[in-house]
Formats: sequence, structure tokens, C-alpha cells
Amino acid sequence: MTKGKKSVRQAHDKYVYSFEEGNRGMKELLGGKGANLAEMKNLGINVPPGFTITTLVCDLYYKSGKKITKEVEKQIDDKLKELEKKMKKTLGDGNDPLLVSVRSGAANSMPGMMDTILNLGLNDKSVLGLAKKTNNPRFAWDSYRRLIQMFGGVVMEMEHSDFEHILEKVKDTKGAKYDTDLTVEDLQQVVKEYKIKIKKTKGVEFPQDPKKQLYQSINAVFNSWNNYRAIRYREINNIKGLIGTAVNIQAMVFGNLGETSGTGVCFTRNPATGEAKFYGEYLMNAQGEDVVAGIRTPLPVFSLKKQNPKVYKELTDICNKVEKHYRDMQDMEFTIEEGRLYILQARSGKRTAFAAIRIAVEMVSEKVLSKEEALLRIEPNQLNQLLHKQFNPIALNKAEEIAIGLPASPGAAVGEIVFTAMDAFEKTKKGLDVILVRVETSPEDIDGMHSAKGILTARGGMTSHAAVVARGMGTCCVAGCSDLTINEKAKTLTIKDKGIVLKEGDYISLDGTTGKIYVGKINTEEPTLSGDFGKLMMWADNVRKIGVRTNADTPTDASMAKKFGAEGIGLCRTEHMFFEGNRIKAVREMILANNLESREKALAKLLPYQKNDFIELFRTMKGFPVTVRLLDPPLHEFLPKEKKDIEELSKKMKVPVKTLMEKISDLHEFNPMLGHRGCRLAITFPEIYDMQTTAIIEAAIEVTSKGPKNKRIKKVEPEIMIPLVATTKEFSILKERILNIVETKMKEARLTDKQAKLKIAYKIGTMIEVPRAALVADKIVASGAEFFSFGTNDLTQMGAGLSRDDASKFLKEYVAQDIYKDEPFEVLDQEGIGELIRIAIKKGRGEKKDLKIGICGEHGGEPKTVEFCHKEGFNYVSCSPFRVPIARLAGAQAVIKEKKK
Amino acid sequence: MTKGKKSVRQAHDKYVYSFEEGNRGMKELLGGKGANLAEMKNLGINVPPGFTITTLVCDLYYKSGKKITKEVEKQIDDKLKELEKKMKKTLGDGNDPLLVSVRSGAANSMPGMMDTILNLGLNDKSVLGLAKKTNNPRFAWDSYRRLIQMFGGVVMEMEHSDFEHILEKVKDTKGAKYDTDLTVEDLQQVVKEYKIKIKKTKGVEFPQDPKKQLYQSINAVFNSWNNYRAIRYREINNIKGLIGTAVNIQAMVFGNLGETSGTGVCFTRNPATGEAKFYGEYLMNAQGEDVVAGIRTPLPVFSLKKQNPKVYKELTDICNKVEKHYRDMQDMEFTIEEGRLYILQARSGKRTAFAAIRIAVEMVSEKVLSKEEALLRIEPNQLNQLLHKQFNPIALNKAEEIAIGLPASPGAAVGEIVFTAMDAFEKTKKGLDVILVRVETSPEDIDGMHSAKGILTARGGMTSHAAVVARGMGTCCVAGCSDLTINEKAKTLTIKDKGIVLKEGDYISLDGTTGKIYVGKINTEEPTLSGDFGKLMMWADNVRKIGVRTNADTPTDASMAKKFGAEGIGLCRTEHMFFEGNRIKAVREMILANNLESREKALAKLLPYQKNDFIELFRTMKGFPVTVRLLDPPLHEFLPKEKKDIEELSKKMKVPVKTLMEKISDLHEFNPMLGHRGCRLAITFPEIYDMQTTAIIEAAIEVTSKGPKNKRIKKVEPEIMIPLVATTKEFSILKERILNIVETKMKEARLTDKQAKLKIAYKIGTMIEVPRAALVADKIVASGAEFFSFGTNDLTQMGAGLSRDDASKFLKEYVAQDIYKDEPFEVLDQEGIGELIRIAIKKGRGEKKDLKIGICGEHGGEPKTVEFCHKEGFNYVSCSPFRVPIARLAGAQAVIKEKKK
Repeated sequence: MTKGKKSVRQAHDKYVYSFEEGNRGMKELLGGKGANLAEMKNLGINVPPGFTITTLVCDLYYKSGKKITKEVEKQIDDKLKELEKKMKKTLGDGNDPLLVSVRSGAANSMPGMMDTILNLGLNDKSVLGLAKKTNNPRFAWDSYRRLIQMFGGVVMEMEHSDFEHILEKVKDTKGAKYDTDLTVEDLQQVVKEYKIKIKKTKGVEFPQDPKKQLYQSINAVFNSWNNYRAIRYREINNIKGLIGTAVNIQAMVFGNLGETSGTGVCFTRNPATGEAKFYGEYLMNAQGEDVVAGIRTPLPVFSLKKQNPKVYKELTDICNKVEKHYRDMQDMEFTIEEGRLYILQARSGKRTAFAAIRIAVEMVSEKVLSKEEALLRIEPNQLNQLLHKQFNPIALNKAEEIAIGLPASPGAAVGEIVFTAMDAFEKTKKGLDVILVRVETSPEDIDGMHSAKGILTARGGMTSHAAVVARGMGTCCVAGCSDLTINEKAKTLTIKDKGIVLKEGDYISLDGTTGKIYVGKINTEEPTLSGDFGKLMMWADNVRKIGVRTNADTPTDASMAKKFGAEGIGLCRTEHMFFEGNRIKAVREMILANNLESREKALAKLLPYQKNDFIELFRTMKGFPVTVRLLDPPLHEFLPKEKKDIEELSKKMKVPVKTLMEKISDLHEFNPMLGHRGCRLAITFPEIYDMQTTAIIEAAIEVTSKGPKNKRIKKVEPEIMIPLVATTKEFSILKERILNIVETKMKEARLTDKQAKLKIAYKIGTMIEVPRAALVADKIVASGAEFFSFGTNDLTQMGAGLSRDDASKFLKEYVAQDIYKDEPFEVLDQEGIGELIRIAIKKGRGEKKDLKIGICGEHGGEPKTVEFCHKEGFNYVSCSPFRVPIARLAGAQAVIKEKKK
Repeated sequence: MTKGKKSVRQAHDKYVYSFEEGNRGMKELLGGKGANLAEMKNLGINVPPGFTITTLVCDLYYKSGKKITKEVEKQIDDKLKELEKKMKKTLGDGNDPLLVSVRSGAANSMPGMMDTILNLGLNDKSVLGLAKKTNNPRFAWDSYRRLIQMFGGVVMEMEHSDFEHILEKVKDTKGAKYDTDLTVEDLQQVVKEYKIKIKKTKGVEFPQDPKKQLYQSINAVFNSWNNYRAIRYREINNIKGLIGTAVNIQAMVFGNLGETSGTGVCFTRNPATGEAKFYGEYLMNAQGEDVVAGIRTPLPVFSLKKQNPKVYKELTDICNKVEKHYRDMQDMEFTIEEGRLYILQARSGKRTAFAAIRIAVEMVSEKVLSKEEALLRIEPNQLNQLLHKQFNPIALNKAEEIAIGLPASPGAAVGEIVFTAMDAFEKTKKGLDVILVRVETSPEDIDGMHSAKGILTARGGMTSHAAVVARGMGTCCVAGCSDLTINEKAKTLTIKDKGIVLKEGDYISLDGTTGKIYVGKINTEEPTLSGDFGKLMMWADNVRKIGVRTNADTPTDASMAKKFGAEGIGLCRTEHMFFEGNRIKAVREMILANNLESREKALAKLLPYQKNDFIELFRTMKGFPVTVRLLDPPLHEFLPKEKKDIEELSKKMKVPVKTLMEKISDLHEFNPMLGHRGCRLAITFPEIYDMQTTAIIEAAIEVTSKGPKNKRIKKVEPEIMIPLVATTKEFSILKERILNIVETKMKEARLTDKQAKLKIAYKIGTMIEVPRAALVADKIVASGAEFFSFGTNDLTQMGAGLSRDDASKFLKEYVAQDIYKDEPFEVLDQEGIGELIRIAIKKGRGEKKDLKIGICGEHGGEPKTVEFCHKEGFNYVSCSPFRVPIARLAGAQAVIKEKKK
């Protein structure tokens, strides 16, 4: 028995608590909702009175064979009497009946999983009382109809359709389009038929006795604790150790009892902008549904000041009090029943990222929050919103959603559909906005991807080529949308289930933050970064211990990332540099070369390009370290796949198609992820890394001691990173070669220019991305590795045996069945892959205490992973430019959370 | 300084040892060859006298700037004088000159890596003395020519071609075809021109002073210690800590000094059969080369008994003595110089597997060896030879080798080439022998593979589909022969480099033990298993602690493996059962099913087949455990790939081609090895494993308590194995389902037949083949796993990031560069993948002390891996039937080696 359970059991003689008797610390006993209502009551806020049957009763209920014991029944009856006295109304009364709601509420929130019954207490007699009292017979009969329907479904286990059929039938007969078109007589007809249907189906009458209604409802709530969806919900959310649900019985209040009644919703601050100004809307003589339904236009909440200054003052006082009490912006529902203000709910209000930051920062200046508390108030992933275009929310509401894919790269994009990278490039040149739609993208598509406003793929996961590249560029991308069928030839996109066919030139809109795809154009809004954002980030940087670098391949990406606060480049993927313009030609010559000599000739053509890339990158990042990963992908990625493209290349390069086809077939691999790539290429063709190393070191020499004086930088810190190392020997062989080249070049430079101050603090290290490397990490360090950077994409692929391009097929099911808590390519699997990382760090640092350790997989910008990296003693995380602020905040939160423990 | 080096240094005042002064324990000081010559001398055997300059001198040589110190020189001169005295000949003498050989010899054998000089001591004067003494001027001048050529190359660093050109020119001028056609005068001409060439190229004369010849040769040997190929050899073979090479100076003796001289080779036992009978051949008045050259036919060694009974007796006495001394069959070279017998070399003789076993077993009955020593005498892999057909060695000598691939499955096969499985099947039905030639094989080819005598593939490694299946069936297979280009359409096979094109119907012969491919038919010989083999295996079983099971999918394989001594099935791959006859149809129906109902319908068709498979398997293995792996491969493996086949299937199944194509495209994966297979299939389609579990348990019930009484077996031990588990939850979800089915079925069986004795000792366990599983092994055991079986193929693939179908492209280079000591799919990588295994065992057994642990990857039959498994406490290894004897022997050797330590 857990500690928690014991403390529950100690209160065994008291089973029912009025709201006045509880507080927010009693969640386990009273459930979340019960404890919250009690807390508000204790704050002196007028919530509709009521009481809570504890979770312990639920446990007892099951233990006594689904029965409520006499002792409990007595306590419930007592509390009911108390309630009737407080409300001066009686359950089932023919003149002015008390109505109550019966709601579940466990210690953990399980929204929608268990049952609720409203309007309890209505029967053939009290409905007339309610009609008279409210002077609104339509409302009374509609409430009665709803009670029967809810009770029938939840308590009597009737089919929902049993009631819907009757309602539809009556509406058809009466020519009513909406429920609201039904008259009192119509509703009486419905009630009558509902009751007949119940009797016919279940053989019993709908209970007229309100007490029977109450007890049957309580039982139904307890039963719903163990219905299938509740059990699955607890399984999926790993909710364990609860003994049951509590039941809340609360008086119902009505905002539609005349002109002194009303209902509304308010926020203690503006949830869109964060402005510290009371905000909300209400309707007089109305129910909650009326506010939402949009039939009458609600008034802004400050109008209430004129309409009912007393209630307005009371409301604002309560708002201030509740916000101060909870120290957070509150979202509250209120009802005015005949001039009396009731608060129905108060909870932390949802807000935009922009508002969240403003509220947090202002609450610090208001001395409500400490800086550290403010930092914890922002969900790091929310920052995404701030940095990318968003759809206008009103326009979005009206848009037609046609499919949903993975939210691979945030932002909003609108454009004409194109199906090839070439078309994307050409149309953009003509000034059109395009969305590039592909089954999957490949490195050849890079120009088209750069041109497009957004990218949509039918295949591939969060770390597919499309997703990774798009995030790097900050381009909106929805990936792996399996509902799409793309016919590239016919240039059509089909959404099978919906029978929608779109063709080239049709407009679509992508939401990269939600993964949703809309047909047509939706207006977008530009992101703005506020001063509050800057302030918050500064606080984060002061707290944070872990470094934050960026994955950037171009000076453009790098300078954007620097603006977002990146403290260096953690991953520069050199292969992306190989696709531009003339370079790809030289790369292909290298691949097609049959001997060392012609391979070296082709590489010599690439050298000046590569050198220049690094010169620009070093200049952009001056003062910060730059980790350059030597060539990683398999060579076949640089050759075309389609016959048409091969034929074109054959003409361009004057190489027979047959030769090209043979080469492509030679390079074909069944499992390219486990293939001939990374350092394996360099073991068989060392001249490739030789060229890249030469380019890096010559660039470093250039920027520190040659070139225009005004462009010189004092110091450069290239970190040369060897990818896909699995064995000690791979590392030592390649390190030796690299070292030789670097030292030779530096010696030469010193000889030619004796004044040259070569402040080149270079390091040679490796990615740890093959599980085997983690297991021999000590030996790799012993053979000279100066840093490790965990490539968690590949480490996850190999460690867990998942292909990121294929696994989306079953990973959804895996997450649904809680086999993985989170999608392992989005959130690092700390138990499995994390263990490999822990092993590698222990072994690596055991050999070299100050071994520099980073992460450059896509996980580097994911908040939970950043926390993990902080805990495990990483020196830095590296992520795509747009995730840099997220990582900075997550890094700070990790420190604060650690302190709290 | 290592301990070894110190002991060498202690002898610092003595630098040169005559053979009489050493023994075989002095390898480090005298080198392997020197110590061995000394040992023979000490046995009283007449080896040509000589002395050894120690390895310490080599060290000193380098330390003194490549000079031999005065002190050492003095000792060499003294020993030389001793030698001249012993031989009664003087170096460089004009009448009867002493000739010596100068040979390197380090502590570790480095064959061919360093230099040798023969006939040293010949010059313009002594050549005449040798001519006179031997009465063979041709021999004398040829010896002189050879000395100059060897000396010129090794000592004076001339190009080999410098001498070859001269020799060829003289031969051309004289119209001589072979060297042997040259006359004395021709050879004198050659010598003259050699000397001129040396003077012209190097500016110095070929030294006439024998002392100069000697010292320059000694220096050359020392220099060769650090030549490129010697350094690489030591690197590759991980030879460390040696201080240098020793130099052996030995008098040369000649078997061609007339009719009382001769030379020969002998074995103390027959190296082909092992018979304990003196064996060998010789020639009188001949040199060693003459025996080898085959110009004159050598005589069997027992003819010497008649020809020279005294020498014969002496030789057999020596043989007996040496064999007894070394306690092993010896291969010896001898020379008779003018009636005097010299032994030039004695070493353990190479022998066939058959002979090795006979010799080892007979030496036990002769009380020369203990049983344990006998067991260590057999290289386990040699047993392969015994179990498979071999080519007749004489026929093999004459055969034309056209290419070489990987020796994937041993044996010898001869047949007509066919290019499709269908052709293999059809032609075999007609009684023809065929070799199935494919780019790669797939499960669809299974019938053709069964029919073929041998299988040849152009792609794939030692664990490719072809290799694994062939080994399982015991069919000869050469895999991954990258020299081949196969044109399936044209039905031709091309060997590019050689310009050879073979077509369907042409005969080829495959040697699966060497990987060699020959054109035409070569006679084969059937394997025979001797009683000695049985005896040896019995001894092995008595010593061995680790169990040996087999990987078998059919009763045929299983009963063969039982004959070879398998103690159970460690891996029954159920997917192989899915391809036969009507089953594949049902499998395809299941794959194409769009909902659970039709999937279950298709599976119901498979159930009776599967059940029957297991009934037969259980009966075959009665009393032994049978591990059944539930379905593992991705579903696309069960669908055709070629358009033609898809169209055919479309007709057969009455499913539109388009639907089939869509399904195939849906199932396509970029990295199938990391794909939707193994337990992942069962998480998404649990009904597949439900069917298989039902089949297993119904079969187990049937064989123990139903069915014909005479076929009943007492007890059945099914071990149900879940493949590709990576997470605890996958295991626990599936275990729960399996457990439910098993228990329900057993309860039902008990209810219907109360007398039934259900002795079903079933277990549920998992393969550990995903690295992540090894890291959470404790949790998997905690959730109920009763056994682990390491799937080291996949564990290697994922752990080291190698695709077994692709990696052969670069793994050769990796092994050559010593990045992996052995090909990691052949020999388990104990450092890397072994570490994952150690982690898993530690965690697994930490949770459950008696956790059953096995291995079922292809490594299970590899001797080094068997030793590893023994050391790590495995309960058993499992391998293909033909490797069972190898594993049994290796298991015994592991115990013996462990004891020795």
C-alpha cells in the first residue's frame, strides 16, 4: 500500500465533504475538481454550494459489490439536506425546485473519460415549478428533455441514437431545422416519447423520485471509473495508484431567470496579448450555451460596469483575488442568478505564446513571481509560435481542413501546388508562392525546397529528409501525411477518404505547427519578437548551464541562429554544400571516377568551393566554435534516380547512360542507413576527407591571418567531426590523416608568413551515433577523440532498430499502446537510447575528465531532451536555428527543476 | 620495458649461439627458426650445422645507427670458424667451398615478409671449386647466378627486372625455352652480364669477398625487419613487443653430388588418411626443386629401404624420435649428401580433417596424447570437410578456376547453370543436376534452392538469405561473387575481367568450402564419417559444458541435426514454413486482407498446416526442447517483386494488378532491416501470433496426449520465442496474449480428456537482437521472459550499423586494415557486440539467476564464438545442422583451454 493510500484511509469515518470543508491540498481524497471548488469556497468566493463524495467511497463501492453502504448514504443525505437549506430550495419541488449536477473528478484530470449528469431533480412535477419560477417553460422542458437523455444514456445505458431518432422525428414532423425551433409543445412531445422508449427498451420507467435519480447517477459515475475508455486512458497516461473517482454534487444556478440574470466568461488578463487588463464577454438573461452558440452577440465584460456596477465590482475583486491566490492569469466562468454572482470555474487560462511571455515578465515586475518562476511558466515549445508565421485565427476558423500530417517544421504557408522541385524553382522565379508536394524529398530537391513557401510530403517522419531540411531553413513543412496519394505524372494529389482531388496550381495552406492541411488560401500573420521575449531569454541564459549551439550549413542559417542566441555551430553538414550549382557536377565526377587520380582531380575542383564555404561560416560565427561534420551520406544520394534525370545527366556529363546505370546499381543498398557512408567512405576513399580537412584548415588560416584585414577574426575554433564511427580503429586511422594535414598546413602557413598569428584552436572528435561506438567510447577517447557529439537520430535508428523513413507506419500505434511514451524520433528515448548515452559518457569521461560532450541530433531542441542532456552533464545541445530559443529556455528550466528537487 | 625484453637483455654478453647451444624455449632470443633448429640438434638429429645471431643484435643494430658492433662481429667470426671446422670446408675455398644460407627468423613466424640469401660463399673462384667437387659445372654456375640475383635484389636493392631481362635475353639468343635449357656457357654469360649490370647501376662490384657477402647479407636481413611489408604484417597480425629478428647462418648441403646423394620429403603418418605409416617421396642425385618440379618422378620413401638401408633406418629412427618429441605428426625435409643424412626441417604436418581425427584418436590409444590434448588437435572448422562432398583433388588440380566468392555453405557441387528458381525446379524434376545462379535469392526461390545441387549469388554476404538457407539445407553455396554479372533475361553469366560468358545449360562446379568457381565438371567424392569421428565427438561431449542445438525449420533438417548430435532446436524459423504449396496463397490472402475478419479467415487456413509442422517437429525432436520463433520477416517478403510474377499472382488470386502494386508499394521500406517486422507485426496484427501460438500448443497437446498411441511422446518442451523485441512493453503485451492462449487451450484439453497427461514444459522468451533490448534486459526478464536467445546477426547489424546484405562492399577493406579482426558476420565481434551481450546477461541474470541463455545467430557454429559463449555462461549455442559437430568440438576445447589458464 502506498503512502498516499494510507493517508486516504485515515479519514475513514468521513465520506462526504461540503465544499467548505476541503482545500486544494486534498486532491487525492476529493479529486481535482472537488479540491478546486473547495479552495475557491475557502477564498470566500461565491461558488454554487455543493459537496463531494470522496474517492474512498468509490473504492468501498467496488469492494462492497457495487453498493453504497448505509453509512455513506446517511452522510450523503445529510449533506443534501444542508444544501437544500443553503439554497432554500428542495429537490423535486413543484414550485421552485433545487436542481443539481453530478460530476466525476479523480485526483488526476481525465477529461471526458467519465460521466456527468446535469439538471438532476427535474421530474413531471418539478418541471412545472421550474417553468413557473423562470417564467420560461421552453427552457424548463428543454432542461427536462436533456436530463432524460443524459440519464438514459449514462445511467440506463440506452443507445444515444434511441433519443436522437425521436428528436429528429419530432423536428421533421414540425418542420424544425434546429433544436431551437422546437416549441414547448414539441418538447413536451419529445419528453413523452423519450419516457415511452425507456420503458419499452429497459422495462422500467424513468425515475420520478429525485433521490433515485441522484443515487443511480452516483452509481453510474462510480461505474464509469472502470469503463473501457477510462481504463485505457489511465494506461496510456500511465496513471497508477488511484483508488477511484470522487463525485461532486453541486447546485445548478441559472443565468436565464430574467434581466437581473446572466452568464459570461472572463480572463484576468488578455489571453491573446497578455495585457494586464480584465477581459471577457457575457450575455444577460442567457445560459452558457448561448454565449458559445453565437446566436446573440455577447457584450465585452466592461459593459457590465454600466449595467450592474455592484456585480462588476464583485467580479473584478474576485478576479484579482483569484489571480493573486493562484499567481497566474485565470480563466473564469460566472453566472449571475437574479443579481447574485456565482463563480462556476476558475483555472489557469490558456494563452498565446506572446501573451504567456508578457504575463510572466510583467508578473515579475509586479513582484508576483520570481524570475525563475516566470521561466517555468513558459512551455518551451510554445516559443515556436513566436518565431514563425501563423494563420489568422479568424480566417482559420472558416477554413476547410482536408487532411493532417506530422507537424514537421512550424509556421504557416500558402501557395500553389507544384509536384517537382524544378517547378517550384521556376514558378518562384516568376514571383509565385508555391507549396512543394512530394512523396518524399531527396537531396536533389534542395533548390526547389529553398524556393517553396512550404513543403508537404506523403512519406517520412519527423526526422525525414524533408523535415530536417525544412526545420534547418525555417520553412513550414508537413510530413508523412499518409492520407495523400500523389500522382506525379498526372500532377494530382488525391485525398482518398474524402474524394478530394487537387491539381497543380490549386491553392493549399499548410500549418506546420499542427500538421493540418487546408484547401485554399488563408491569411497569415507575421511573427513579432517583443522586448519581453528578449528579457525572458536573458533571464534564461543567466540561469542556464548547458550551452546552446545550432545546426547550420550556410552563413544565412548561421547568422539567423546567432540572432536567436546560438553560441556556436554544433553541426555543419558539409554534404548540403555539395548540391549547389557547379559543385554537384564535380561531386558526380568524383563518384564516377575509376581511380584515385581522377577522383583527386574531381575533388580538387570542389576544394575552392568548400574552402570558401568555411571562410564565410567562420567569419559569420566569429568567436564561436564551429563543428564541421565531414561527408556523411552514401554516394548514391548524389546521383539521380529517375530515368529521365539519368538520361539528362548522361548528356551533360558525356557519360553513357549504361555506365551511369551501372554505377547507380553498384551503389544501391538494401539498407542505406546501415550502409557505406560516413567514415566508411573515408576508409575506402580517404581523399574525400583529405580535401575537406584541407578546406577547413586553409579557411581557418585565411580568416585569422590572411585576407582583407578588416575581415580578419582573432581566433577560430574549428571542430572537425568524423561521422558514423563504430570502432576505435576507424577513428584513429582517420584522425591520424586529419592531424597530418592540419599540422602540415599550419607549418606551411607559419613558414610563408612568419608574422602570422595562427590562433586556430582546432579539435578532432567524433559523432557517437552507432551503438557500438558508445560501448567502446573509452577506447575511442584513448585514441585521441577530443569531443563527442551524440547523433541521436542514428543512435535511435540503430539502437532501437527503427528506420526513421519507415517507422511512422507503426509508431503511431506504438505510442497509442504506450510502448513508447513519446515518438522516439521527437523525444529522446531516455530509458533505452539514453542508457547508451550514459554508458558512452561514463566511459568517455572516465578516460578524459573534460571530454567535451554535445548532441546534434534533431532531439537537441526538444525540451525534455535538453533537460536530460543537462542532467547527464552535456556541455551543449545543438539544434536547428528556430529551436535555439526553445533550447535556451529548456536549459534554464532544467536547472530550476533540479534545484527544486 | 616488458618482462620479456629484460630476460633477453640479461644474456647481453652472448650474441651468437651455435645450434647446439639453444633449445625451443629460446624463441624470443633465437627466433622461431633458430630455436627449432637448436631443438633438433639437441635431439641428436643431424641438421646441417650453423649458428644464430640473436634478436638482441637486431635491436643493437638499430640502436647503433645500423651497425654491427665489434663485439658482435668477433662472436660471428668465431662461430663461422667453428662452422668451417665442423664442415671441413672453408668459405670461398677454390676446391671445396663451404656455402651457407642466411635467413631471418623472428619469435613470431612472419612467412615471406623478410629476406633470405642462399648459396652464399660463391665467387668467381669458389664456383670452380664447387663445379669440380660436385662434378656438375652447370649446377655450380646456376647456383652462382642465383646467388648474384638474390644478393643483387636483397642486399644491393636492384630491381628484380634488371636480372630477369638479362636472363630472358640470353634465353632468346640461345633459343632456350626453360632455364633448364641453358648450358654452362650460357650461365657463365648470364653471370657476366649480371655483374656488369650491378656495376653499372650501383657503381660497385658484386663483392667477391665471402665475408663481405656475409656481413652485407646480415645487415640486409636486419634492414628487412623494418621494411614496409614486415611492418604492415606485424600491424595486421597485431604482433607487438618484439625487438627484432634473429639471423640464422647454416651450412648448405647438396643432394645432387652423385648417386649417394639425394633429397626428399616425408611424413611420419599419412597426411591424407592418417594411417600410422611412414610416408613420403625422394629423388637421388637431385635438389629440392627437382622433387617439386615434376620433371623426374620421385620414388616412394620406402624404396629407400632397398636403395640405402642404413640411411632409411636412420631416417625412420629420426622420424619416430621427432614425432615422439613433438607428440604430433611431422612433415620433414631431408637431404642425403654423399651418404650422410641431414634433416633440413621438421614441423607439424598439414593433414586432411579425416587424417587429423584418425591421428589424434590413435595417438590417444598409443598413450602419446591425453583425450583432452587430442581434442585440441582438431581445428573445429576442419570438420566441415568431413561432412560434405569434396572435389577429387587430382581433378581439381586440372580444373579452370574462373572466379572466387564467399565460401557460404561448404561442399562441392556440379551442374548446369540455371537462372531462375522455376528452371531449377523443372530441370531437377527431369533428373538433371543444376546450379542455381542468382543476383541474390529471396524466400520465393525456396523450391528452386531445394532442388539445386549448388547455389551461386553475385550479391550478399555470409549471412545473406542464400547463405543462411543453403547452410540450413546443407547445400553447397558460393555467395557474393562480385566478379559476376548476371543477365537474367538473356540467361547469361559474365566474368568481366576474364571475358568469360557462360549461358544456361553450361556446366560449372562450385567449391563451397573455398568459394572457388570452376568451369566444367569436376569429379566429386562422397564424405564418410569414421568411427574415429564418433569417438572424438563422444570425448568432446564428455568434456563440453555448453549445450549444442540446431537451427532447423523442417523435420528433415531436424533429424539430420540430431544425427550430428544436436540436443534440441534453438531456432525454428516459422516463416520458411509459409512458402510451401498452398500456404503461400493463404499468407498472401492474409496480407491483402483489409480488415481483421478477412485476416483471421486467411490465418485460419494456415493453422492446420502450422499445427502439422509442429507435430512433426516435436515428434522428430522427442525429449529435446524446440524453440519456435514466431513470424519474423516483413510482409513484403511474401509478395512477388517482378512485374511478371505480380501479373501472374493477380490472375491466380483474382485481385487487380493495381491493388497488388499498391499493397507492395505500401509495404515498401527504405531500410527493411529496421522495418515493420518481428514482434512489431504482432503489435499491429496480433492475430498472426495468436494463430501460431494456437498451432504450437495444439501440436504439443496432440503429440503428448492425442494421436496414435505409438507416436505419442512423453514430454514436449516448446519454447515460444518473440523476435525483434526492443522494449519491455512489446514483450509484456505479447507474452500476455500467448499465455492466455496456451493456458486456455491446455484447460480445454484437460476438460475434454481428463486422463490426458499434458507434460508440456513450455517457456515464453525473447530474442535479444535489438541493442535496446540488451540495455533493458532486466526489465524484460522482470516482465516474464523465461529465456533469451541472442540473435547475433541482427545484433551485429544494428549494434555496429552494418547491413549484412550490403556491407561486403567495404568489409573486406575493413578486415584488411584490421578495423575488424574478423568479418563480424562470421566471427562475433566480442569487443563491441560482445559487450552488449555481457550487459544483457548481467542485467538478465541479475533479475533471474537461472535465466536460460542461448545464441541462434549464424555465429552459433563458429568456434571462437562458441568459446565466447562458454565463457559468458550461455546454456547453449544453436547452429545449422552441419555445424553441430563443430560447435560440439569447440565447446569442449573452450573447457580445456579455460582449465589450462
